[in-house]
Amino acid sequence: MIRHETLNPPLHIYPINPWKIIETSFYPRFLAQTETLFSLGNGYLGLRGNFEEGSPYFQRGTFINGFHETWPIVYGEDAYGFAKTGQTMLNITDAKGISLYVDDEPFYLPAASLLLYQRTLDMQAGTLDREILWETPSGKRILIESRRLVSFDHRHLAAFSYQVTLLNAEAPVVISSEIIGGQTNQTGQNDPRQAKGFKDQVLLPVLHDCQEQRLFIGHRAKQSGMTLACGIDHQFDTACPYTWHSDCSDDSGKVEYLIDAKPGQPIQLIKYVAYHSSHSAPVKKLHTRCNWTLDRACKEGFKALLNSQRSYLDDFWQRSDVQITGPEQEQSPVGEFQQALRWNLFQILQASGRAEGASIPAKGLTGQTYEGHYFWDTEIYVLPFLIYSAPHIARTLLRFRHSMLDQARQRATELNQQGALFPWRTINGEEASAYYAAGTAQYHINADIMYALRKYVEVTDDKALLFNEGAEMLVETARFWYDLGFYSQRNNGQFCIHGVTGPDEYTTVVNNNAYTNLMARENLRYAAKTITKMQECHPEHFATLVHRTGLDFAEASDWQQAAEKMYIPYDESLGINPQDDNFLDRELWDIKGTPRESFPLLLYHHPLVIYRYQVLKQADVVLAMFLLGQDFSKEQKKRNFDYYDPLTTGDSSLSACIQSIIAAEIGNMEQAAKYARYAVLMDLADVGGNVKDGCHIASMGGTWMVAVYGFAGMRDYAGKLSFDPCLPKQMHQLKFPLCIRGQTLEVCFEQKKAHYLLRDGKELTITHQGQELLLKRGTPVETAIK
Amino acid sequence: MIRHETLNPPLHIYPINPWKIIETSFYPRFLAQTETLFSLGNGYLGLRGNFEEGSPYFQRGTFINGFHETWPIVYGEDAYGFAKTGQTMLNITDAKGISLYVDDEPFYLPAASLLLYQRTLDMQAGTLDREILWETPSGKRILIESRRLVSFDHRHLAAFSYQVTLLNAEAPVVISSEIIGGQTNQTGQNDPRQAKGFKDQVLLPVLHDCQEQRLFIGHRAKQSGMTLACGIDHQFDTACPYTWHSDCSDDSGKVEYLIDAKPGQPIQLIKYVAYHSSHSAPVKKLHTRCNWTLDRACKEGFKALLNSQRSYLDDFWQRSDVQITGPEQEQSPVGEFQQALRWNLFQILQASGRAEGASIPAKGLTGQTYEGHYFWDTEIYVLPFLIYSAPHIARTLLRFRHSMLDQARQRATELNQQGALFPWRTINGEEASAYYAAGTAQYHINADIMYALRKYVEVTDDKALLFNEGAEMLVETARFWYDLGFYSQRNNGQFCIHGVTGPDEYTTVVNNNAYTNLMARENLRYAAKTITKMQECHPEHFATLVHRTGLDFAEASDWQQAAEKMYIPYDESLGINPQDDNFLDRELWDIKGTPRESFPLLLYHHPLVIYRYQVLKQADVVLAMFLLGQDFSKEQKKRNFDYYDPLTTGDSSLSACIQSIIAAEIGNMEQAAKYARYAVLMDLADVGGNVKDGCHIASMGGTWMVAVYGFAGMRDYAGKLSFDPCLPKQMHQLKFPLCIRGQTLEVCFEQKKAHYLLRDGKELTITHQGQELLLKRGTPVETAIK
Repeated sequence: MIRHETLNPPLHIYPINPWKIIETSFYPRFLAQTETLFSLGNGYLGLRGNFEEGSPYFQRGTFINGFHETWPIVYGEDAYGFAKTGQTMLNITDAKGISLYVDDEPFYLPAASLLLYQRTLDMQAGTLDREILWETPSGKRILIESRRLVSFDHRHLAAFSYQVTLLNAEAPVVISSEIIGGQTNQTGQNDPRQAKGFKDQVLLPVLHDCQEQRLFIGHRAKQSGMTLACGIDHQFDTACPYTWHSDCSDDSGKVEYLIDAKPGQPIQLIKYVAYHSSHSAPVKKLHTRCNWTLDRACKEGFKALLNSQRSYLDDFWQRSDVQITGPEQEQSPVGEFQQALRWNLFQILQASGRAEGASIPAKGLTGQTYEGHYFWDTEIYVLPFLIYSAPHIARTLLRFRHSMLDQARQRATELNQQGALFPWRTINGEEASAYYAAGTAQYHINADIMYALRKYVEVTDDKALLFNEGAEMLVETARFWYDLGFYSQRNNGQFCIHGVTGPDEYTTVVNNNAYTNLMARENLRYAAKTITKMQECHPEHFATLVHRTGLDFAEASDWQQAAEKMYIPYDESLGINPQDDNFLDRELWDIKGTPRESFPLLLYHHPLVIYRYQVLKQADVVLAMFLLGQDFSKEQKKRNFDYYDPLTTGDSSLSACIQSIIAAEIGNMEQAAKYARYAVLMDLADVGGNVKDGCHIASMGGTWMVAVYGFAGMRDYAGKLSFDPCLPKQMHQLKFPLCIRGQTLEVCFEQKKAHYLLRDGKELTITHQGQELLLKRGTPVETAIK
Repeated sequence: MIRHETLNPPLHIYPINPWKIIETSFYPRFLAQTETLFSLGNGYLGLRGNFEEGSPYFQRGTFINGFHETWPIVYGEDAYGFAKTGQTMLNITDAKGISLYVDDEPFYLPAASLLLYQRTLDMQAGTLDREILWETPSGKRILIESRRLVSFDHRHLAAFSYQVTLLNAEAPVVISSEIIGGQTNQTGQNDPRQAKGFKDQVLLPVLHDCQEQRLFIGHRAKQSGMTLACGIDHQFDTACPYTWHSDCSDDSGKVEYLIDAKPGQPIQLIKYVAYHSSHSAPVKKLHTRCNWTLDRACKEGFKALLNSQRSYLDDFWQRSDVQITGPEQEQSPVGEFQQALRWNLFQILQASGRAEGASIPAKGLTGQTYEGHYFWDTEIYVLPFLIYSAPHIARTLLRFRHSMLDQARQRATELNQQGALFPWRTINGEEASAYYAAGTAQYHINADIMYALRKYVEVTDDKALLFNEGAEMLVETARFWYDLGFYSQRNNGQFCIHGVTGPDEYTTVVNNNAYTNLMARENLRYAAKTITKMQECHPEHFATLVHRTGLDFAEASDWQQAAEKMYIPYDESLGINPQDDNFLDRELWDIKGTPRESFPLLLYHHPLVIYRYQVLKQADVVLAMFLLGQDFSKEQKKRNFDYYDPLTTGDSSLSACIQSIIAAEIGNMEQAAKYARYAVLMDLADVGGNVKDGCHIASMGGTWMVAVYGFAGMRDYAGKLSFDPCLPKQMHQLKFPLCIRGQTLEVCFEQKKAHYLLRDGKELTITHQGQELLLKRGTPVETAIK
């Protein structure tokens, strides 16, 4: 069930282009959306797509992954064990500003007469480019060409090129490059998904410095104590005569160039921006690090940065690109799909590429909604893509989770449970969910992380991570499940887990949520299997593990037994898996009869109302059928899908991609294609109407899965690859690479033919529609699709 | 199951006395508790038992029922429909202060050498008296005799007599009578049951006045806009030479008497205190009203106030007193029971007597815990006592509920429901519960109020109230239930109600809570029956009702049908009524194995933990068995009680009384007596350890029910009285009056004999142990107890 699939602005007015997002007119009313669409980032640093000239803007947003303020969560009515520490990723010092004055009049987009306007996000170059031809009221024509990047190679660096050329007259020109602290944070009045505002300034200025054209501002966050430094430096080049001066105070600074501009003589300003942040290091030290970064940038120059950016992206696309061909590539829905999917993958990279020491915020680094928190999104929706295309990033993210294990242990203790419980939402490792029913009760996050660990290990064969970080997390999560559940006499001695919330937040705190029980079973099994294997084959690792966790080997058999006895809800009469013990007892919500403006339901109905009905925010059992497909027969999948699909509102952006994959698997290609389109265009076409607040990174990861697990029908149970492709009618070709245990597999599907090629590596056995194929490096295999 | 039944301070050091609470020593460590124990009130105004001298104190508390500040409730994570307006009964202007200085040294209790100390709450006189003999360091002996009352007759008036006599020397004496605004409000750091604090002063001084010995201070509450006035006046009498002066500023004022005290010459100060408050009237008008009150008080004098107080109480006790006789009345447990029960009834009167335009706060007017809110306590726990002893007060309280009906309609609309939903907790009619799972989800409050309405109407035959306020509430509450529930195909077409919380808050948001379904059924039936009757016999009232509610007569048959089809959970194998659909699926909490310091569970366990278990905060099914005893066989009651009793922590003070009544009914007199003692001593012996925060008024109401419904075995199904008495072993006699349709029935039970006497009225049929008795006025009937 999809409520609406209108393509919202601005996609419908953009030309379809396989590698670029191009805006050919300035649209004031799409300002907020385009700030998100044209945002740049590298996983550490993110810049919203604000104009250099500063205004107009919806939010002048600059974010550092994990750089946050803390605050005590206030409850209407507090209770024992409620999360205590709110965390908000902050909007930090803005250094995007470059203002232009001609004849002492500012260039202000909404008022300017533009002879040419083009803004282009180039996903191969990794730059945001803009070309403007401005005619002043006095008829002077000025060409403004700018380009910016957030460097993937240099994690702490962004760079801007801003070039102004007077075409038909001379004029006094001022270019002012700015750095401004004290940015405001986005707030949500009535939308629980949006961030808290702060009454007072949270970033306290502690240090500033001005050395010629190099300016510096340092801040400390009031409560969290985190420190932040932003430095800018400039290279200025023109044949016109000019002077400059600079100054910097506590919270802002600027370098101003006053030029006697001559026609045809370009004026170029290169601006380098360095950000460094720390949990506690003195701002002075960060100042020094900014200087290093800026020194290197100035030395290398802007062109070198462009080159390294391109080569980073070449490598990325080679490992990641999903190529889709349709009938008339340029303007067809397939072309649109191609463009949107590439943009999605590009955004994932921008959210994760250099996220060392952090995870992936729900909105990446494009907005403050969900407060920059890390959820299960990373592991369930984004990691599969990264595991198969950039396993080093996947590894970093899993290690980051492990770094929070001690806090997860503490949280479990707070909840009177053994083992560890990872926070439902967090930046700093502490639980930050202030509504436990759709927060802490989503214990499934423990199993989700272990699921991703397993997939990572199976695909990469990274035993080091498994035996060190992995095993320790497995032990503590298995302990948690074993303690949380119990053998129920009333359920024939089966192992039941009560009082949990599954992925679908439209029912909460239920007994035996099917998804949770299935995923917990995997968690328990994998933990038992891993430590058994370690004891047998890697006694030295096992000894370390025992030391770290106080493991008693008998625990493994306890877990194994709980897994074997795990209760999975099943309804004989309907032949489906109820979402939980009581799901089928609920009344049916009349989705078709609910007016469109009453969605998302959560904004217009009290939770008590929603919870009483059979109505889903997002795929739940259907998600389990995707993640643990081997546990369901195809018939079972069909029955479950047919039951849940009409009940699913899609009020969560995490749903459509999963529904598409299962629809494809059960042969419902019409639904599969419909959901796929909905998912892939979620942000670029602003389907949800809230792209202004940032990208739905998880949904974007889901669209890679739509292509790979959906249309290509890939499955990777126990690390063994199989394909059962079925392309939507309009699609001629679907092609993508996969990285498996250091080898590169290239697959290409047409409507009736499949091509497999092991590009790097030695050999690989895969299954094509039930038939085993042994692939040797460099030898393409072509086979029919039935 | 009772966790602990230790008698806490200070009861164990008080002498047992049938009509008085007597403290014979000053115990600094019981300061907080005794402020509650010795508090005075009349249902409008309440004074905590602070010493006149002001310090030491735990809270200098003065409260007006319903006088509150509002504030926007802040949620960690907000959602649609969450309650918006916090309400807190305020601690208002303190006028209790009378300071004494001898030789310019203050009389300060903790430091004073006391030759005599006695503080007495006299429940027949309605006064708090204190007698102190103080020896100053220089050997001067000063007798201080004080007495205070909060007048029942004069709703807005309190009065103090403070008399000082130097016994063996002369000395300069200063007596300073004070009035002080800006009192602090009690806050609870980690206890959700306690009130919010306010950062800033919430009562803004707007007017003050000083006319000789009459002082006046007026305030306005910042957000709610409520206005408050407090005026004091004095009568001073002594043969010693003296002068006086007075002053008053914004927030405080005093009258000081400087006396050359002579030995043996009493110095007497009478202080009259008037409070007036309003939702919006200008303070000026309240000033005038204070003057009226003070004029009258000064004219009548203190003695007249004492007389009217006593005669009000004579009348109260004649209608209400429960007399219990035991073997050695003075020091036996029976004597203790008698004293505590009387004090409980006295506290109910102090919380309700003059509560016109308000209801009964959870702690009466003795403390700010639960923020002075009105809950279901009034209707289910306190109204039965009032209905049978002071039906005019019961009527006032029911009419007050009706005054909030429009807001209840609005709340239902907010929750997408038809009809009306009364707030779970409120002062001003708006829902103030900031935790819906143990708040709004307790829809049963609708049925509780209708239950009380029915009992009131059956006992008083007050058709006017039924046809006016009552019928309108019945229609709207029945509509609510009919809309909330649904006919469940999976439950054989029975009428189910999902997503509710019953009285026991240790499981929340469940399906088919037995209590709720049973009570809703009563609500639906009574509504259908009432409007059917009205249409047939009172067409003019019916027409008005239709006009007020838009009633379609077909609704009655809908309600009737829903009631007949109401699903009541029943477990065949155990032969019990499960508390809800999933109750028996839960794990059993090991109550015996839980250390004593881990109770109440809610303060040491996350709700998610508690909710997973079979563990009760308070009687739930057992409460239903009391309220709707006719729906259960005795066998059924026994099985249910035996199942739930060991699972009930009694973490709520509302539980023990109900458990006692049902234990008595099923013949388990040992448990009945144990719970009865626990309940009756709840506050006077500080069994819960929190009497410092105020009295548990509901539990106090419950102890009257223990005597009447428990030991006397009274039942009043459909207004027909029956008795099946069984006294605890040590009790010789139990005697109490009942007011039934304007008649007075006096019952008296001994171990083997029952006496019935219709004191006023004409005739009355009752049932004694299954045998009908026709009572004629003035003719006692004596019969054996089997």
